[in-house]
This record gives sequence, structure tokens and C-alpha cells, in this order.
Amino acid sequence: MSKITVAEFQEIAAKQLPFAVNFGFAVTALEPGKAWARAPYHQDFLRPGGTIAGPVLMGLADFALYGAVLSLIGRVELAVTTSLNINFLRRPPPGDVVAEARILKLGKRLAVGEVNLMQDGSDELIAHVTSTYSIPPQAE
Amino acid sequence: MSKITVAEFQEIAAKQLPFAVNFGFAVTALEPGKAWARAPYHQDFLRPGGTIAGPVLMGLADFALYGAVLSLIGRVELAVTTSLNINFLRRPPPGDVVAEARILKLGKRLAVGEVNLMQDGSDELIAHVTSTYSIPPQAE
Amino acid sequence: MSKITVAEFQEIAAKQLPFAVNFGFAVTALEPGKAWARAPYHQDFLRPGGTIAGPVLMGLADFALYGAVLSLIGRVELAVTTSLNINFLRRPPPGDVVAEARILKLGKRLAVGEVNLMQDGSDELIAHVTSTYSIPPQAE
Amino acid sequence: MSKITVAEFQEIAAKQLPFAVNFGFAVTALEPGKAWARAPYHQDFLRPGGTIAGPVLMGLADFALYGAVLSLIGRVELAVTTSLNINFLRRPPPGDVVAEARILKLGKRLAVGEVNLMQDGSDELIAHVTSTYSIPPQAE
Repeated sequence: MSKITVAEFQEIAAKQLPFAVNFGFAVTALEPGKAWARAPYHQDFLRPGGTIAGPVLMGLADFALYGAVLSLIGRVELAVTTSLNINFLRRPPPGDVVAEARILKLGKRLAVGEVNLMQDGSDELIAHVTSTYSIPPQAE
Repeated sequence: MSKITVAEFQEIAAKQLPFAVNFGFAVTALEPGKAWARAPYHQDFLRPGGTIAGPVLMGLADFALYGAVLSLIGRVELAVTTSLNINFLRRPPPGDVVAEARILKLGKRLAVGEVNLMQDGSDELIAHVTSTYSIPPQAE
Repeated sequence: MSKITVAEFQEIAAKQLPFAVNFGFAVTALEPGKAWARAPYHQDFLRPGGTIAGPVLMGLADFALYGAVLSLIGRVELAVTTSLNINFLRRPPPGDVVAEARILKLGKRLAVGEVNLMQDGSDELIAHVTSTYSIPPQAE
Repeated sequence: MSKITVAEFQEIAAKQLPFAVNFGFAVTALEPGKAWARAPYHQDFLRPGGTIAGPVLMGLADFALYGAVLSLIGRVELAVTTSLNINFLRRPPPGDVVAEARILKLGKRLAVGEVNLMQDGSDELIAHVTSTYSIPPQAE
């Protein structure tokens, strides 16, 4: 079972992740080592060309992976991203974006995960992310 | 000389990069292959632990590198990020963040660049980014 | 069906990829957009601590992904890697290493893929790679 | 002053990094947080198209950064790479390759560095690497 509930995660987000609130990001489901998140479309997501801007996708991926990390270690809010790599695969037209994050490896000091980003209702990847979170010693 | 002025770049941002407007990002100087950008501190930048959230830094780096790309190819708004890699080096306390972007290689189809992120007034890196932009064929 | 056979791929490797020959790398199966490769263990793979050196894993991943790219575009030998990102997840003890590569996106100019690296006989990832290949214009 | 000499580093390589010996890699200079390395050209470096294969460049970058890490923490052989990101910028024709590695941040648990790869005698980058090393607790 996830060590944090969706409601608990959303409470952290509401109080302490204002950029996620501003973007409207929400975690919709958590399982141990997995998280699903959604960005409901807003026209502020756009970039030249009428597609969704990269930073929105990077932010959503980081947010989803934070959920996946906390699903394994509980409410350790000071887990922080140490690196993130994103490949943009298709230019996403306006619409909701969903993220599926999963942990590839949980160590004592680092967690490494992968995030698939898709348009809602599609299986086609629009971006793929790998990222590493540092886990503070008090969480061990 | 840069193929785009700071004013022209800021006009693109104002009209077509709403996330950058919302974050308050501004390009402050452009030279051929180089761009400087700034994120004036706002409390919405924070994450748990009272430091600046990773997505703010990723967004600023991407924004600065967009400026560095356009400094070389002119107003080709459809240049898009194809990949981005960030290493977070120090947890940034509240304060303005500055970005220095430079192009490492401009090819016909891809531009690769590097961005250093620092707190304003400090030389210490808080994050380091490498990223690739795809240049549309019409720009060649 | 793969646009290149295992025998054809191994012939390219034998004639034109001496580092892969020296390491003993072999592609063992190809499907459209997928490749499987193997590195039979040799003591020259080791690094301090008695585990397998990172460059061996990076080389195997790059080799496997080259197979996956050619499975889709045929014998376009001038397809070249433009970027590679690897996360090392577990220190691999001596033993054969296997790689599973798959293409996430094939565009006209770029192919992006993912490679899972495991010890032979295990499902546990020892490393995870994402990488981009540039496809020469004559291949379009 | 570097906490390890070039001779000591080359001794580790000679005894415990057979792939580096096979490739002919050598560290040529060390300063605190910096290392210079060289790969004397050998025809086994080639790939289709007559340029130097990516894995040779990745191996040389990793080797150089290992030197830069040990220059700061001394003979801690169990420092291991946890991630590496490379962008290939120009196709390198046959010839010696040199690497300049420098540490961007040394923390208690992680060191992050950057490596520039060039052809000998040229200032033009052929590849750019960022990478993270994990430092074992006994080294702290």
C-alpha cells in the first residue's frame, strides 16, 4: 500500500507547492512506487506554435515522480530532485496531459524513476522523463 | 550581433509564453549564442523545505536557452526543445535566480546549449543544464 | 518485420564496430523497433570494487539501440547517436549482461529510444538508458 | 593540491580498469577538482562513417571525471558513477581525443562534474558530458 494517500499528497501540494497549484496539477492515484498525475489544460500552457510548453511537462513529470517517491518512503517532504532528463517526443496540441511515474530503483540515498507523459485518452508518449530524487538521511 | 533584440524576445514572451510571464521571467541581455535571464523571486517559487522548486529552475533555463538559440537564428519561434538535462547542485534559498545560457554547437537541425543557474549576486552554481533545440527546416 | 536481420547487423558490427567486437557484444534478436543484445562476461569488464565498469554498460546500450534504430530504417549505417543518458541503478557483479532496446519515437530526423540493462537471468535493472539517434537525410 | 597524483591514478587504472588500459586512456594532469585525460587514436575506435565511436568518448569522459573526483577525495576507489549524460556535437575524425573534466559540486554523498571532449590541438568541442559520482560513506 502507498505510504501516503492521494489526499495527503494533495494537501502537501496545496500548502507547499504553489507552482503546482497554479498549474492545476493533481495526483490522481498512488500505488507503492507509482503515481498518476494530471494537468488540466489551460491556455497558459501554450508556447509559440500553439503546443504545450516544455516547462509545463517537466513540472508535471517532477510532480508525479515526487508522488511516486513518497508512496514508498512516506511523508518525507525534504526528498528533493537531484537530476532530471527529458526527451520531448511529439508536440502536444492543447488538451489535458497525464503522467505515469514509477520508481525504477529505491536505494537508501537515491530513488530513480521514469515518467511517461501522454495526452489524456492517448497511449502515445509526448515526452519521457528519467529523474533522481535524493532521500534525506532522517528518512532512512 | 544577436539576430534578435531583448525587446523583440520579450515581445514573443509576453504574447506567446504565458508561463514565463506568470513566473516573471525576463531575458536581460543577448549576444550571439548567449543569453542572460532572470527570475525575480516570488513566494510561489517555493517547495517544501523553503527552497526554490525545481520546475522554476528548469523553466528559467529553457527560457534562457530559447533566447540564446534565437540570438543565432533570429525570430524562428518554432525552434523547440527536444531534450533537457538538469543537475541540481545546491538548494536555492528564496531570492532572485539568474541564468546564463550559451550555445555549444549550432548545427543545421539541432542546437545544443548549456545553462548555468545561480542566485543573483553569487557565482556558485545552483543548477546546471544542457539542452537541445530542434531547428525547423524553414530556418535553415 | 525488422528491416535488417541479426546476421546483417552482426556483419556491420564485425566489419565496422571494432570496439563492439573487442567487448564481445552481440545482437541476439531484432523486431521492428526492438533489439536484444548481450555482453558475455569477460574480466576486462571489471572496475575497482569487482563490479562491471560503466563504459561497458554504456557501450552495450548504445550498440543495442543502434540495432533497434536499424530495425526500423534498414541499413543506414550513418545513423549516429546525438545524446545518451544513463542511470546506474545497481552495481553489477561479474556475469553476462543483457540489453533490451526499444524505440520510443521514430521521427524523420531523430529516433529516441530506451534501453534496459540487466544481468542475464534476472529481471532487476542494473542500468537504464535513454538515447537519441540522428537519422541522415538520405534515409528519409 | 590534488589528493592523488597522476602516477597513483594511473596505477589504479593499470591494475583495476582494464577497459581503460585496452583503450589506451591516460590521465595526463590533475588539479583539485580537475583532470585532463587523453585517448591516443587507434583504429579500433572507429564506427561506420569513419568517425570515432560514441562509447570511446563516453568511456574517456567517465575516466577523466573519475580522476577529477579522486583529486578531491583521494584514493576512494569505490566512488562510482550514478548517472552520465552526453551530447555529441561534432563527428570526430580519426585522431587523438582529449578530455577536460571539472567538478561542479562536491557534496558529502554526490559529486557532479562536467567534461569537455575535443580533438587534440583543437578547441572545438566534439562532445559534452555531465555526470554524477556517488561517494561511499566511508569517504566522508
